[in-house]
Amino acid sequence: MKKPLIVQKFGGTSVGSIERIHQVAEHIIKAKNDGNQVVVVVSAMSGETNRLMDLAKQIDSVPTARELDVLLSAGEQVSMALLAMTLNKMGHAARSLTGAQANIVTDNQHNDATIKHIDTTTIMGLLEQDQIVIVAGFQGVNENGDITTLGRGGSDTSAVALAGALRADECQIFTDVDGIYTCDPRVVKNARKLAVIDFPSMEAMASRGAKVLHLPSVQFAWKNNVPLRVLSTFDVNEGSLVKGESGNQAVSGIAIQRDLAIIEVDKEHLSSATKQCQMLGIDIWNVIEEAERAGIMIKQDACAKFDLVFSDKIRNSEVVSLLTAVGLEANGMVEHACDLLAKRDIEINFSATNALTMMLVLAPECVDTAANILHDAYITSSEALNIQQKHAFLG
Amino acid sequence: MKKPLIVQKFGGTSVGSIERIHQVAEHIIKAKNDGNQVVVVVSAMSGETNRLMDLAKQIDSVPTARELDVLLSAGEQVSMALLAMTLNKMGHAARSLTGAQANIVTDNQHNDATIKHIDTTTIMGLLEQDQIVIVAGFQGVNENGDITTLGRGGSDTSAVALAGALRADECQIFTDVDGIYTCDPRVVKNARKLAVIDFPSMEAMASRGAKVLHLPSVQFAWKNNVPLRVLSTFDVNEGSLVKGESGNQAVSGIAIQRDLAIIEVDKEHLSSATKQCQMLGIDIWNVIEEAERAGIMIKQDACAKFDLVFSDKIRNSEVVSLLTAVGLEANGMVEHACDLLAKRDIEINFSATNALTMMLVLAPECVDTAANILHDAYITSSEALNIQQKHAFLG
Repeated sequence: MKKPLIVQKFGGTSVGSIERIHQVAEHIIKAKNDGNQVVVVVSAMSGETNRLMDLAKQIDSVPTARELDVLLSAGEQVSMALLAMTLNKMGHAARSLTGAQANIVTDNQHNDATIKHIDTTTIMGLLEQDQIVIVAGFQGVNENGDITTLGRGGSDTSAVALAGALRADECQIFTDVDGIYTCDPRVVKNARKLAVIDFPSMEAMASRGAKVLHLPSVQFAWKNNVPLRVLSTFDVNEGSLVKGESGNQAVSGIAIQRDLAIIEVDKEHLSSATKQCQMLGIDIWNVIEEAERAGIMIKQDACAKFDLVFSDKIRNSEVVSLLTAVGLEANGMVEHACDLLAKRDIEINFSATNALTMMLVLAPECVDTAANILHDAYITSSEALNIQQKHAFLG
Repeated sequence: MKKPLIVQKFGGTSVGSIERIHQVAEHIIKAKNDGNQVVVVVSAMSGETNRLMDLAKQIDSVPTARELDVLLSAGEQVSMALLAMTLNKMGHAARSLTGAQANIVTDNQHNDATIKHIDTTTIMGLLEQDQIVIVAGFQGVNENGDITTLGRGGSDTSAVALAGALRADECQIFTDVDGIYTCDPRVVKNARKLAVIDFPSMEAMASRGAKVLHLPSVQFAWKNNVPLRVLSTFDVNEGSLVKGESGNQAVSGIAIQRDLAIIEVDKEHLSSATKQCQMLGIDIWNVIEEAERAGIMIKQDACAKFDLVFSDKIRNSEVVSLLTAVGLEANGMVEHACDLLAKRDIEINFSATNALTMMLVLAPECVDTAANILHDAYITSSEALNIQQKHAFLG
């Protein structure tokens, strides 16, 4: 019988020292001893990418994109070799592969490349020899043989793409938190860890500010139907599993996104404002079209770029935060939520709903309190539990 | 008309900081502006290889050979990318290539690989685009696509092998000294820089203790008839050129090799001692077979290994140094040299000559004085200059 195949991904903090690499090796060996084939994706040791970037910036504020990829990809080459050595020393045959050696072929977009396809022949060959295969995350090779890097969250992308290509049974993202929570536990003390969450809910969470998983990784895993598990490197734990379409289990979470801005314009300029954003590559979080105002919601750090070409048409701009409740039936919920918040003098600037989410835009200084109020009302309280049980997930 | 092609090699000290990489870039741009095509070979930034090796040693005193190559090769990947960025920033198109990307194919001997062949198609293609090509020294790829490293002096080897494969007009080894001297200038103040030295003499110097060039690089350049120039990164200078067979110009140099040992054995054990060395991979510098004694001369640091299997047959062992005068006619010269040294109470332990060299073995504490006496007598003094002019080089 064919052994299950697991892809495990360890980030920079997880491989940040020789001691931690040893801890990582123990997770890998456990998975191997449990009867799995194991492919591991590693990031550069924490601090290393910054160190290399600093060297590059001393040379050029905008270093050559191709050479920056050559430079940064050296980071994972170090961590993957150290991890393979550690596994070998611990008695488990392991081989490391660069992105190029693993045949992770990307487009030519240096510093922000997209994986086009992965030829898994080399990896499958090594797995057949009972080797543990360590693959450099974040990097690939274009069709000219040039090294490319995938941009932010690249190692997660590498892991899910490999899991997809290898038809892995599970892709495990090891990190410094022990799973996916109903809300950021630093904000909401009552937040609880989810054992399972479905892909549509996880996608909604990740696209609306939950940091635990990168949105493209979630989307890729969903599309390729690869179960995704988030778990802690620094613990023995089951973590949280992302799998399936909306299921029987009603799962609710609240995502928090800070540092957004609402840019108000005259109604006649709304469509040119959205076009401008497309041209500048600025994500629009919401288009606001109400009786008394029109505008767009974008990331605050994109405002300067937008202002540059549109400033004369901007009527007003305002920094806001976004709370997104995911997995709740939205009918009548906005009014209920607004009432709850109004009792604590919290005003909603703008709200929107779709089948799976309720979005509330509010002043940045209110967001933590509001998150706690909504979490208590819709997730923690027994009434909330009832609501969850009654209203099956919409998805 | 085809432009001349120059290969320039810069060691770890030369690329040890962003400032120094800038200096290196200026040498390269000068060569380019002088009308040459330029291929550059770089080592890792000084200290980097040691830093990586320390990490590996924390994991395993004998780290997996394959993975150690993956690890160490990241060092040149960093320096080559930084150099290419610097050149680009200075307005000169440059591309970096790893050993694998440059198609430097080696055997499978991890940590001490030998270059088998180089497919220069990629490099030639880039040169035709008027690019400066930066190649990682010290590294290659075996036929399985695994990263290999070349062992000691590997970047010099990369440079001469590339120069050979590209049929370069010259291979320039940039270092922290400004050329090849008649003797180590730290020992002999009167040592003078040679403008030109022929390959047979340079080979004799390098094989008998001169550190300025690694022996295999000299041999490879000689075999492939690639002129080799040694010059300083930190100066504008012509350096010294190694080229040709023994020429008209009588060149003399004195090489110093310290830390040797003469191991005396009974005559009947001499041949088994030499066989033992072969089996253990220990280089024999000389076999001593005289009326009153027999023995072998080996590197002092190889003694422990030899002792281990041969200790019961060793009669005596003694640490010595070796002075080798290269390019002098040897007839009658040994007696003359011994007389000169005897006047200063320096005794010769053992001597040997061949067509191109006179070797004198003496006590370590005498070697510096003896080097100065011989240098004054055979190189500096006008009498020496006469001797050099009369006796054409033997080679």
